[in-house]
Amino acid sequence: MSALVIRPATRDDVAAIVALLADDPLGAAREEPDDPGTYDAAYDRVVADPGQHLVVAERDGSVVGTLQLSVIPGLSRRGATRSIIEGVRVARDERGAGLGTELITWAVEESRRLGATLVQLTSDASRTDARRFYERLGFVASHVGFKLPLGD
Amino acid sequence: MSALVIRPATRDDVAAIVALLADDPLGAAREEPDDPGTYDAAYDRVVADPGQHLVVAERDGSVVGTLQLSVIPGLSRRGATRSIIEGVRVARDERGAGLGTELITWAVEESRRLGATLVQLTSDASRTDARRFYERLGFVASHVGFKLPLGD
Repeated sequence: MSALVIRPATRDDVAAIVALLADDPLGAAREEPDDPGTYDAAYDRVVADPGQHLVVAERDGSVVGTLQLSVIPGLSRRGATRSIIEGVRVARDERGAGLGTELITWAVEESRRLGATLVQLTSDASRTDARRFYERLGFVASHVGFKLPLGD
Repeated sequence: MSALVIRPATRDDVAAIVALLADDPLGAAREEPDDPGTYDAAYDRVVADPGQHLVVAERDGSVVGTLQLSVIPGLSRRGATRSIIEGVRVARDERGAGLGTELITWAVEESRRLGATLVQLTSDASRTDARRFYERLGFVASHVGFKLPLGD
């Protein structure tokens, strides 16, 4: 396979990122790829925030993966800055070939470079392969993740 | 009991916040209250980031609770902005009296005000009471939370 590049997402990548987010058992019901304005506005909010690092993995000019890294300073754990990984997606025809590992390894190294001493993420409990995947990369499944959607 | 005020933390609150963080079965091993410089520097990083909202709950001039709210814009879930609650602590003599509920209810309303459509948090799996507490407030324990500490 040709070389992989992991780089900051541009506005021109938004449609490809949304397609990746939607091409997923859980994402299919959550996303609305036919509403690009919503995602363009969200992209603008992301790039306006220096704590957010939305990246794509590109191979042969195509976006084949994405993730978002958020850097969060805080007081707990001796003033630890932590990073949170969200929205990890790998294109269908790249799955099982190591791109997920490359993305997470990149995110961990980038977190260290940005001053984080702790990396965290949550994964839907129904993603049964994810636990093994993250544990193999050294993550510890020590926490329960709670969500509360806010209605109108 | 006299009135409770939830307000942004000032630099003068840092020692009280650290005392709350440390007065906890897990926090006791993680914090270093005798090293105020570390926490003051962390406080400065927190207040320099407009996405971070570190608050204290004050009663009769004493800090009796704390939490940190982080606002994270993103593309997934139709461009949802989410908030993350971290570092929730209630003073020992206020435990079991509803302050935790007041703090989380405040954080949910503040999240909504800040434009978030999803609130999330993780809780150490060993905190057995926490699950019931958050579920009673409407949170769903749908995720597994992973952490990776970064060594030197």
